[in-house]
Amino acid sequence: MIKITFPDGTVRDYKAGITGLELAKDISPALAREVLSVTVNGEVTDLTRPINSDASIRLHKWDDEEGKHTFWHSSAHLMAEAIEQLWPGTKFGIGPAIENGFYYDIEPGNGHELTDDDLILIENKMKELASRNQPIERREVSKQEAIAYFTKKGDEYKLELISELEDGTISFYSSGTFVDLCRGPHLPSTEPIKAIKVLSLAGAYWRGDEKRKMLTRVYGITFPKQKMLDEYLAFLEEAKKRDHRRIGKELELFTFSPKVGMGLPLWMPRGAEIRASLINFLTSILKKRGYKIVATPHIGNVNLYKTSGHYEKYGESSFRPISTPQEGEQFMLKPMNCPHHCEIYNATPHSYKDLPLRMAEFGTVYRYEQSGELHGLTRVRSFTQDDAHHFCRPDQLREEFKSIIDLVLYVFRLLNFNEFTAQVSLRDPDHKEKYIGTDENWERAERDIIEAAAEMNLSTVVETGEAAFYGPKLDFMVKDAIGRKWQLGTIQVDYNLPERFDLTYNGSDNQKHRPVMIHRTIFGSMERFVAVLIENSAGKFPLWLAPDKAVILPISEKYNDYAKNVLELLNNSDICTLIDERSEKIGKKIRDNELKRIPYLLIVGEKEEQTGTISVRRQGEGDKGTMKPEEFIKYIKEEIKREIAV
Amino acid sequence: MIKITFPDGTVRDYKAGITGLELAKDISPALAREVLSVTVNGEVTDLTRPINSDASIRLHKWDDEEGKHTFWHSSAHLMAEAIEQLWPGTKFGIGPAIENGFYYDIEPGNGHELTDDDLILIENKMKELASRNQPIERREVSKQEAIAYFTKKGDEYKLELISELEDGTISFYSSGTFVDLCRGPHLPSTEPIKAIKVLSLAGAYWRGDEKRKMLTRVYGITFPKQKMLDEYLAFLEEAKKRDHRRIGKELELFTFSPKVGMGLPLWMPRGAEIRASLINFLTSILKKRGYKIVATPHIGNVNLYKTSGHYEKYGESSFRPISTPQEGEQFMLKPMNCPHHCEIYNATPHSYKDLPLRMAEFGTVYRYEQSGELHGLTRVRSFTQDDAHHFCRPDQLREEFKSIIDLVLYVFRLLNFNEFTAQVSLRDPDHKEKYIGTDENWERAERDIIEAAAEMNLSTVVETGEAAFYGPKLDFMVKDAIGRKWQLGTIQVDYNLPERFDLTYNGSDNQKHRPVMIHRTIFGSMERFVAVLIENSAGKFPLWLAPDKAVILPISEKYNDYAKNVLELLNNSDICTLIDERSEKIGKKIRDNELKRIPYLLIVGEKEEQTGTISVRRQGEGDKGTMKPEEFIKYIKEEIKREIAV
Repeated sequence: MIKITFPDGTVRDYKAGITGLELAKDISPALAREVLSVTVNGEVTDLTRPINSDASIRLHKWDDEEGKHTFWHSSAHLMAEAIEQLWPGTKFGIGPAIENGFYYDIEPGNGHELTDDDLILIENKMKELASRNQPIERREVSKQEAIAYFTKKGDEYKLELISELEDGTISFYSSGTFVDLCRGPHLPSTEPIKAIKVLSLAGAYWRGDEKRKMLTRVYGITFPKQKMLDEYLAFLEEAKKRDHRRIGKELELFTFSPKVGMGLPLWMPRGAEIRASLINFLTSILKKRGYKIVATPHIGNVNLYKTSGHYEKYGESSFRPISTPQEGEQFMLKPMNCPHHCEIYNATPHSYKDLPLRMAEFGTVYRYEQSGELHGLTRVRSFTQDDAHHFCRPDQLREEFKSIIDLVLYVFRLLNFNEFTAQVSLRDPDHKEKYIGTDENWERAERDIIEAAAEMNLSTVVETGEAAFYGPKLDFMVKDAIGRKWQLGTIQVDYNLPERFDLTYNGSDNQKHRPVMIHRTIFGSMERFVAVLIENSAGKFPLWLAPDKAVILPISEKYNDYAKNVLELLNNSDICTLIDERSEKIGKKIRDNELKRIPYLLIVGEKEEQTGTISVRRQGEGDKGTMKPEEFIKYIKEEIKREIAV
Repeated sequence: MIKITFPDGTVRDYKAGITGLELAKDISPALAREVLSVTVNGEVTDLTRPINSDASIRLHKWDDEEGKHTFWHSSAHLMAEAIEQLWPGTKFGIGPAIENGFYYDIEPGNGHELTDDDLILIENKMKELASRNQPIERREVSKQEAIAYFTKKGDEYKLELISELEDGTISFYSSGTFVDLCRGPHLPSTEPIKAIKVLSLAGAYWRGDEKRKMLTRVYGITFPKQKMLDEYLAFLEEAKKRDHRRIGKELELFTFSPKVGMGLPLWMPRGAEIRASLINFLTSILKKRGYKIVATPHIGNVNLYKTSGHYEKYGESSFRPISTPQEGEQFMLKPMNCPHHCEIYNATPHSYKDLPLRMAEFGTVYRYEQSGELHGLTRVRSFTQDDAHHFCRPDQLREEFKSIIDLVLYVFRLLNFNEFTAQVSLRDPDHKEKYIGTDENWERAERDIIEAAAEMNLSTVVETGEAAFYGPKLDFMVKDAIGRKWQLGTIQVDYNLPERFDLTYNGSDNQKHRPVMIHRTIFGSMERFVAVLIENSAGKFPLWLAPDKAVILPISEKYNDYAKNVLELLNNSDICTLIDERSEKIGKKIRDNELKRIPYLLIVGEKEEQTGTISVRRQGEGDKGTMKPEEFIKYIKEEIKREIAV
């Protein structure tokens, strides 16, 4: 008999060799129908593998990440089987489960080139195969046997993978006619896979190496119920409509130019206006909270980054150093703003009475990303952090942490991000060599973060091994209007840079002391944050952030002069307003301008001209009545005031 | 007989061989006493050289640049004579007249190392020699003779210079015991040199080449009257007090860090506040004038600059390109913002009805300067231009030009720059190969600038050959509080980049047309402009630009709590206010804070606490009476309103 410990702590005796599926059945037949995989002593594994000694177990259903992962991993094999049957001779790279669904990188047999028309063929074949409820079976094989199998099959990709494995650790999984080199885990059979969608194609270099062959990546997703697939596809459709790249282009917010360079955003006037509104608004909040704003160039001498340690991290893997025509100096695009801020700290002496010093900058940093990794404003090569560094005494650390948490929560309230999670990332205590800094400092910092969050009633998830190399951190993730999670702000303690830059302050004992440093951003980066704002609002920004607040629509050209008078009045009151002077029917003008998501449409015709008024329509809401321009200015300013008062 | 044409157009006959000095005597003995050199047919020359054929002449007195230049050039020789007599065996590099005075680069004899103590020795020796009224005599020599002379003397610097000259073009000038290789011109004798000051020492590489020997540069200045020297030294003293590097450090406005890199300004909180106030203020003006603000990264692909032509100009001589770890791309720190703006222009189609498009950015650019050339904020390696580009139809060019001139004049009025000059820079019609673009475009652009300035009643100086390589321009120079001239804004027409970037708009004929581009800055760069502001105001900024508007001085610690209440009230009304809580006497607090140039000192004691008031002092002006904090907020806001209403 062996002892099985369940997540709730109960321990029961079972005969050795019992499987996860049998354990589930023992608990309830309903559970057995839903269970997808099982974690045994920390390792996720097949439901059908025997458990031979005492173990802690967790059974995974669809709602667990581990359950979904197993489900999609088996679905990838099912898709491979379908593809192999459709195009015999297909070679297979890797086929993992991903955040939403799965993919398989393939080289189709007989030189066939997959097109979007093939997606439905694959999907139908998968449905046919899935309905057979074939078992998925694991088999351990010797390296020799594995090599022999794929040599015979002629799949050099699998052979390359096998060559890197140790004999005695290799397993095959077969489902139907398809046999794969695979670590697992998998479902017991394809039976739970009820709803299938093959989504799209993409190119992917074998092993992500641009010098190697380009394979075809086939993306798919599956669900245990058709309704779940339908909902997911509707979600995808909604996400596509909200795609910030599409809306950014439509509303002329930002652009990219191949000549300037991929991943280098160019903020067009409307986007730059949104960006500036956010920066100005946060700046005024920061000033009231005692922050000092600084400004620094986007480059620094390599020696600066050798001092900071960033050269070691970014020197080789990011944009390479910039040399000079004379004097042999070398500069780097800044990967971080902190070294510059440390040098500003060091430009003047500091007393214990002057701390905390809260230094903020909307500082642009540059990191090289492969072109294939770039994505709109969310993955770029240059981005502007709403960066700040708190230099404080050790005894002030927790209060500073709390004040930043307070600021983050304030900004989230303001922007209606009501659902968010906070994650505390600690170092991996088993791999302390990956981190810079002493044990004592790490322990102190980790304790301060956790306790500050608790004192602010912030519920957090604690993740071990997720810390930055220089300190533990607290990250905020917000959930957007359609349920997606985005990582935004971060707060990071740093006992390391103060050492490296020899930062000091004079204590009350008249001795030199070392301050503690906190890095923090609220938005994360302006680029990413604006992307989130766009996708969350589908481009219908709150009034205070809308780049154009109103558009005047003259009913006919006769009223263009009156419209221009109103325009000037509004623009001089800092209400950025446009005019639509086209000789179109008013109905068309209204429709066209509603599409531009301009919050207010101001219609002027004979009646308005005679009474010196405007007819006000709110985008998406309709008529708001007739007002004098001065009343409208007051009306709109009060609406903005209400928006930003939280 | 020859015909001599005078500047007023009169022509007189003289015998051939007459000299400039004899011409002056012929006009009046008073003029002969003041004249220093003469321009004959466009070439400045000695007063004692015979004129042998018909000529146009201009006689130069002290007030002419040419007169001063000759005076100081002869003074450099006089200084060389003094140095040679003090330290025989001294070798001489070059010794030119400069904007204010002259210098000589020397290697003192017998390995003597000059110190500041030697300056007075040189000065006294110069005075002694000058009082002898020695004639300065020109002699033409063969190359062989010149080489023989300096070989014997053992001066390898002069020998190197001679080696580069053509035989038949070489002249010597002797004054007293000193003989120099020199083109001239010079004074007839040292007689006019009445007031002498040897100013300072510096190191200077021979021929500006860091790989060659470091010589000692001796700076001096001379005047025809002692009073003029006294005034100049007083001016120097005043300039030193206003030195923006000194005030910048004192008021903690900006700093430089050797670790970040020379010439890369770090804006400290107070300086960043001034910079931001200027940017925000100009931004609000720009928006009212129809500008669209954009934001772009500080780098671009080298191909962008190959397209623009900037790579050719900056690729080798400035910061070198940045390579990437993969994908073989190359980027450059942007030397100019215009290519990015062209790409934003190209991101959307444009109709003739949309133009002019005025695109503005406070864009930071990077140019490599040798470390020896760097100077505070006025000569830096990274600077933020208040840059804008007007994309317009050819028929709009002149109006756009006028609107920019209007904006420049508005900003100058606002900042009390009442004395300024404007220079139109045209291309050198004899060296058209130095410029990009067609004849037709150049002629049109030059005409448009000149006529726009005339229509705006802007008086200009026209300089031929001073244009940028891509177009003619109009530069503004302002005179500061102590009479120095600073170059600030510039307006440049460009017919070239629109071609290179293939910029187009759809005309009313539905055909594609090429827009014209205007580059313009008002401040020039934020760095240079803030330097000028500091030196012009000696750090006493106008209230609206002062980073801290007020400081509260409690009479004793008893009133610190009341002071803090007032502080919060003011800061919440966006009146940035400090508090001086030190336990010092109020007199010392006032003196210390006056030195910080904070505009308002607010004194609070028993009386103020009881009546809920503050006693207001204006920096440098004294008592302004007692007010309630709310009254003071209104008072200060009205003062700012008055300042910026012009």
